[in-house]
Amino acid sequence: MADFIGETTDLLRRTPEVLRSLLVGLPEGWTDTPDTPDGWRPRDVVGHLITGEQSDWLERTQRILQHGTSLTFDRFDRFAMIERDADASLAELLERFAQLRAENLARLGELVTDADLDRRGMHPSLGEVTLRELLATWAVHDLDHVAQVFAGLAGSRDAEVGPWKAYLGILLRREDPSATPG
Amino acid sequence: MADFIGETTDLLRRTPEVLRSLLVGLPEGWTDTPDTPDGWRPRDVVGHLITGEQSDWLERTQRILQHGTSLTFDRFDRFAMIERDADASLAELLERFAQLRAENLARLGELVTDADLDRRGMHPSLGEVTLRELLATWAVHDLDHVAQVFAGLAGSRDAEVGPWKAYLGILLRREDPSATPG
Repeated sequence: MADFIGETTDLLRRTPEVLRSLLVGLPEGWTDTPDTPDGWRPRDVVGHLITGEQSDWLERTQRILQHGTSLTFDRFDRFAMIERDADASLAELLERFAQLRAENLARLGELVTDADLDRRGMHPSLGEVTLRELLATWAVHDLDHVAQVFAGLAGSRDAEVGPWKAYLGILLRREDPSATPG
Repeated sequence: MADFIGETTDLLRRTPEVLRSLLVGLPEGWTDTPDTPDGWRPRDVVGHLITGEQSDWLERTQRILQHGTSLTFDRFDRFAMIERDADASLAELLERFAQLRAENLARLGELVTDADLDRRGMHPSLGEVTLRELLATWAVHDLDHVAQVFAGLAGSRDAEVGPWKAYLGILLRREDPSATPG
């Protein structure tokens, strides 16, 4: 890839606006359903993305640059948002995420150049990883969780689609991940 | 649901802007990968959504209102976009989709009221369906296919994430729909 950092930050910069376009002002009748029966509602997903901005991606980038593999990454708290965000509205969470993301991309631009991408850090479970892998994962992690938002929205209309459910993989997979639409 | 038509069109109105925010100007290094090995690239998904606007959702709405169950819906051509859109850019397809969607929502607002939602039509495979089910399916069909765009984008970074792939369900499921991230 000719411009790995540029292409990666191009995607990362879009996520807040994609989520705003989809969710700000959308009626609660759409946004109150988790992606799977024990999964996350859109507000939980945005909270999880906020945690990543606060304590994961930039923190790990800095640790690679400062300590290499000698200081293992802290573990990612996957449920930090549940209590922390209990009183915030979805619109407030989206603004918080957008602000943190913009700040982190600005800091990333100051910290990292192409020459750093092969530098290594130590993941607590995966072992040695490169900065390039960390940044690619930041972007794909966004895509994974925004797709989860779409599954939650779809789930809120599970009953309303009637017999068409048989054709809608996004609904079938909420109950059976290996389901194939007919 | 208190305002089914309003809530449904609220979601439908957002899809073009969500896709624009995500895709316009995004480097081809992100947009050239299908969601599964024999699946669709983002441009194929947008083409499929265009087909729906041209020949499915509004057409079927009008058929229910004019003919009820006496005239079966035409089948949806799931591959119409392959030849039709071969020469269009992704940005052009997005503009075409946005324009068709806006026109169709304006026509829907003139055609349909709450009193029509229980009226019935005849689907060539599913049998009797209601207008309410058709409109709910229009929206969930959007969500299903936009989620597919995210899987394609993620797939373009399948190699770059390195060992993190084990945690990224959106990548694992491209190869094994029942895969569970570790």
